[in-house]
Amino acid sequence: MAAPAPAHQRLGDHLHQTRLLGSISSALYYDQNTVMPPAGAAWRGEQLALLAKQLHERQSSAAYADLLAEAEAELDGASAPEAAYNLQLLRQELRRQQALDPELVAAIAQAQARGNALWQAARSQNDFASFAPALERLIQLRRQQASQLASAERIQRSPWEILAQPFEPDISTTRLEDLFVPLKAELPALLEQVRATSTPQRATNDLPEVLQEQLCRDLLGSWGYDPARCQRSRSAHPFSCTVGPQDFRITTRVVPGQPFSAFLATAHEWGHSLYEQGLPRMGEPYFPWPLGEATSMGVHESQSLFWECRVARGEAFARLWYPRFRAGLVDDPWGEPQRFWAALNPLQPGLIRVEADELSYCLHIVLRYELELALIEGDLQVADLPREWNRRMQSLLGLEPPNDREGCLQDIHWAEGLFGYFPSYALGHLISAQLAEAMERQLGPIEQRVAEADGTSLRAWLAERVWPLGRRVNGEELVQQVCGEPLSAAPFLRYLKAKLERLQAI
Amino acid sequence: MAAPAPAHQRLGDHLHQTRLLGSISSALYYDQNTVMPPAGAAWRGEQLALLAKQLHERQSSAAYADLLAEAEAELDGASAPEAAYNLQLLRQELRRQQALDPELVAAIAQAQARGNALWQAARSQNDFASFAPALERLIQLRRQQASQLASAERIQRSPWEILAQPFEPDISTTRLEDLFVPLKAELPALLEQVRATSTPQRATNDLPEVLQEQLCRDLLGSWGYDPARCQRSRSAHPFSCTVGPQDFRITTRVVPGQPFSAFLATAHEWGHSLYEQGLPRMGEPYFPWPLGEATSMGVHESQSLFWECRVARGEAFARLWYPRFRAGLVDDPWGEPQRFWAALNPLQPGLIRVEADELSYCLHIVLRYELELALIEGDLQVADLPREWNRRMQSLLGLEPPNDREGCLQDIHWAEGLFGYFPSYALGHLISAQLAEAMERQLGPIEQRVAEADGTSLRAWLAERVWPLGRRVNGEELVQQVCGEPLSAAPFLRYLKAKLERLQAI
Repeated sequence: MAAPAPAHQRLGDHLHQTRLLGSISSALYYDQNTVMPPAGAAWRGEQLALLAKQLHERQSSAAYADLLAEAEAELDGASAPEAAYNLQLLRQELRRQQALDPELVAAIAQAQARGNALWQAARSQNDFASFAPALERLIQLRRQQASQLASAERIQRSPWEILAQPFEPDISTTRLEDLFVPLKAELPALLEQVRATSTPQRATNDLPEVLQEQLCRDLLGSWGYDPARCQRSRSAHPFSCTVGPQDFRITTRVVPGQPFSAFLATAHEWGHSLYEQGLPRMGEPYFPWPLGEATSMGVHESQSLFWECRVARGEAFARLWYPRFRAGLVDDPWGEPQRFWAALNPLQPGLIRVEADELSYCLHIVLRYELELALIEGDLQVADLPREWNRRMQSLLGLEPPNDREGCLQDIHWAEGLFGYFPSYALGHLISAQLAEAMERQLGPIEQRVAEADGTSLRAWLAERVWPLGRRVNGEELVQQVCGEPLSAAPFLRYLKAKLERLQAI
Repeated sequence: MAAPAPAHQRLGDHLHQTRLLGSISSALYYDQNTVMPPAGAAWRGEQLALLAKQLHERQSSAAYADLLAEAEAELDGASAPEAAYNLQLLRQELRRQQALDPELVAAIAQAQARGNALWQAARSQNDFASFAPALERLIQLRRQQASQLASAERIQRSPWEILAQPFEPDISTTRLEDLFVPLKAELPALLEQVRATSTPQRATNDLPEVLQEQLCRDLLGSWGYDPARCQRSRSAHPFSCTVGPQDFRITTRVVPGQPFSAFLATAHEWGHSLYEQGLPRMGEPYFPWPLGEATSMGVHESQSLFWECRVARGEAFARLWYPRFRAGLVDDPWGEPQRFWAALNPLQPGLIRVEADELSYCLHIVLRYELELALIEGDLQVADLPREWNRRMQSLLGLEPPNDREGCLQDIHWAEGLFGYFPSYALGHLISAQLAEAMERQLGPIEQRVAEADGTSLRAWLAERVWPLGRRVNGEELVQQVCGEPLSAAPFLRYLKAKLERLQAI
C-alpha cells in the first residue's frame, strides 16, 4: 500500500470540495435571483438547505477535525508561516463551530425564517408591534449564541463583538466608537451647511431603459469587464457573486424614476467583483485556503464604494461621460457637465439608508450600530426601539420618520438576526477614502487619471496593493500596510468637505 | 425512543433527497448553457462531477440497498400494486448499479471525455482516422458494460438492447426491425417522388431577430406558457430541462439564414416541457418515486414532435400564423399562406440528421441504428465505418457525403459512447403520429382544432391521457393503452403520404 498523502494535502483536497459545494450554492443563488420562475422558490429552498447541511457537516465533522489536527501536527510553522496562519484561521473557525449547540443553530435558522416573514408583513402594514416578538426572540437567541461562542474566542470579546466577527474580524466596539466620534461630530454640521445653502435639486428626467443598459455595458467595457470570465444579468436587487475561481457574476436593475441607479449600481457591484477577481487564487497558500478569501465586509465595501463614489460620482468622470448620457436623449436635462455632476451627487438627507447620499450615509450606520449595541448588550427594550430610532434620527439627521416603515422597519438585517453587520458599510466609506489618499500620493490626483480616461492605472494600483492581500491582513492591518497609517475617519471627512465645497460652488 | 418511521417513508425521503441533488445538476446545466462565461467551464465540470459522485453513492450505497430491502420486506404488494411497481423499478436500477465494476464506470467516463475531445478535433479537421481509436475503445468498454449488466437483466437481452434500456426500457432489436421495415420500404420511394416532381424551393429571406423572438414569445403565450413556472432563455443549442417540480426551463436560439429554426425549436422544446409539466407529481406513488418519471426518450420525443410537426408545421397553423410572420416584414417573401406553409415544410433530403425533413429523418436513424448494431454486436470494424456509412447513405437517401464531417462524424452520440439512443428519435415520430390518429378519432381533425385556434383541447387531451401515465407503462404499452392498438409505423406513413400529397398540390 502507498503511504497516505500528507495531511496538509488531504486537507487542501477537503477545502477544495468545500469550495465546490459553496460555489454550487452561489450558482443556485444567482439563478434564483435572475431567471428562476417564482413557483420554483420552495424547491430551490430545499436545494439550498441540502447544500447548507452538507457544508455544515464538512466544516464541523469529527473527520474534518481529525484531519485538521493531523495537519497541525505535521506543520513546521517556522518554515511555513503562511501555512501556519491558514491552519490558525481554520482552527478558529472550527472552534466556533464546535462551541455551538446544534439545537441553537437550528433554532436560529427557524427564528430567522420567522423573523423575515413577520418583518415583511409588519413592514407592509407599518405595524412594528406584530414584528416585535420575533425580534425579541432573535436577540435572545443571538445573545445565547454569543455566549456559547465566547469560549471559542482567544481574547475577551463582548457579545456584540463576537457576533460581528464573521463580517469584521477583530473589530471592537472601542475601536468603532473611536472611528465614529468624528463622524458624529462633523457630519451633522456638514448636513446643516447643505441645508442652509442648497436649493433643492431639480428632478432629472428619467433615462430610457435601453440607454441605461448601453451605458452600463459601456462602463463595464471601459473598466475591464471580460466576457470570458464575467456575466451580467438583471435582477430585482443588484448584487455581485463569485460562482467559480474564473466565473464572476454581477447583476443590475433599471429603477423607474432613478436615472442613475443602474449605472451607479453597476459601478458599485463591479467594484465588489474586481476585488473578488483580484484575490490570490493560484495554489497554496491561497485557493482554496482561508488566505485566499476576502478579508472583511468593510474592505469589500471599500472596493465597491471606491468605484461608485470616488470614480463614477467624481467631477472628471461626469465630464467624460456627460456626452454619452446626453447623446441618448432628445432633451438634455442638465445643460452642462457641472449640473450633470451635481445630479450624480444629490445631497439631501433622507429617511432611507439605501437611498442616502455620501454625507448622511454613515450617520444612518451610526444610528443602527448604537441601537443594536443597546439591544444586544445594553438595556434597550424592543418595545422602545421605534421611539429610540426616531429620537436619534432627529438628533443625527434632523428628520422625523412619519412611520416605522420608513423608520426602524426599513432594513432586513435585524429581521434575519444579523447584528454586527451594519458598521461594515461605514468602514467601507472610511477605508475607501483612505486608500484613495494613498493612491493619490503615488499616482497623483484620481480626477486627473479619470480625466485622461486612465482607469487602468487605478485598477492596476488596487490589483497590486490591495486585492492580492486576501486574508493575510484584516481590514485595519490592510489600511496600515497600504497607506502607512492607521485607519481613521479623517480622510473620509476631508474628501467630503472638498467635494461639498466644489458642489456648492456650482 | 419513538419507533422508526416505516421503511417506505424513509425510502421516499431518500428519493426526495436524490431528486434534490439531481435537480441541482439540472440547474447548473441550465446556467452553463445560458449564461456561464466560458472560463467557468473547468470549475463547473468539477461541480457537476462532485454532484454525480454524490448521486452515484446515494443510488448504490449499502445503506440504500438495505433501505430498499426493508421497504420490500414491509410491502403488501397485493394491496399496493403501484408501490410494488415502484420498488421493482428501484430494485432493477439497483441491480444494474451493483452489476457494474466501479473501475469500468470510471474508465467509461474517461473514455467519454477523451472521445468527445478527439471527435471535436476530428470533425473540425475532417479526419476520421484520428478519432477511430477513441471510438474503438468506447465500443470495447460499452460491450464490457453490457456484459456486466447482463447479469442484472431478468430476461435475455443482447448487448445493444442492454445499452438501450436507459433510453427505451424493454426495447428489443426484433421489435425495432419490425417497426423499421416499412420505413425502409416506403420512405425512399416517397423521397424519389418528391425529387421527381418538386421544383427546388425558393430560399426564404431571413427574419429579423426581434421578430423571431416576438413570434416565439407569442407561440408560447398561446400554448400555455406560465411565467410563474417557466423560464425561457437563449443558448447555443435549444433544449428543455426541469429544474424543480414547479420550475421548467426551455431555451431557443436564432440561427442566421434559418428563418423558422427558432420558432420550430420553441414548439419542439415546449412539447418536451409540457410532458414534464404534466407528469404525475403529487405525492405517492409518484413524485419522487419512479412512477412519476418520464417513461422513455421515444415518448418524450413524441411529445415534442407532436407540437413541432403535427401542429406548427401543419397547414391550418400556417394559415393562422402567416399574418403574424408577414406583419413584421417589409416584403412578404411568401405571397400567400400556402407558400408560407410549404416554406415551413421543406422536403429536400440532405446529409445532416439535425437538419432533415420529416420524410427523410427516420432514414437517418435507421442508418445509424443498423451501423451501431453492427459495431456493438456484429463484425463491422471501426475502420470500415466511413465506407459503410456512405454506402448506406447512398442506398437509403440517394446521397453521397463528400466528406466524413458531413458523414459519420456529424453526431456527438457515439463520440460519447452513447449507443442505443438514436432509435428513440424515430420512435418519437411513430408514437406522435399514432397518438395524433387516436386524438383525431376523439376530437376530430387536429387541423380543424388548430384553425379554430383551439390548441387548448389538444393540450387537454394529452394532459388527460398521456402525460399522467408516467412510468406506469412503457412506450409501447402507452400506445396500446391510449390508442387501443399496438405501436406501428403505419400511422406515420399515412400522415406523411397525406401531407406530401397536399404539399405537392400547391
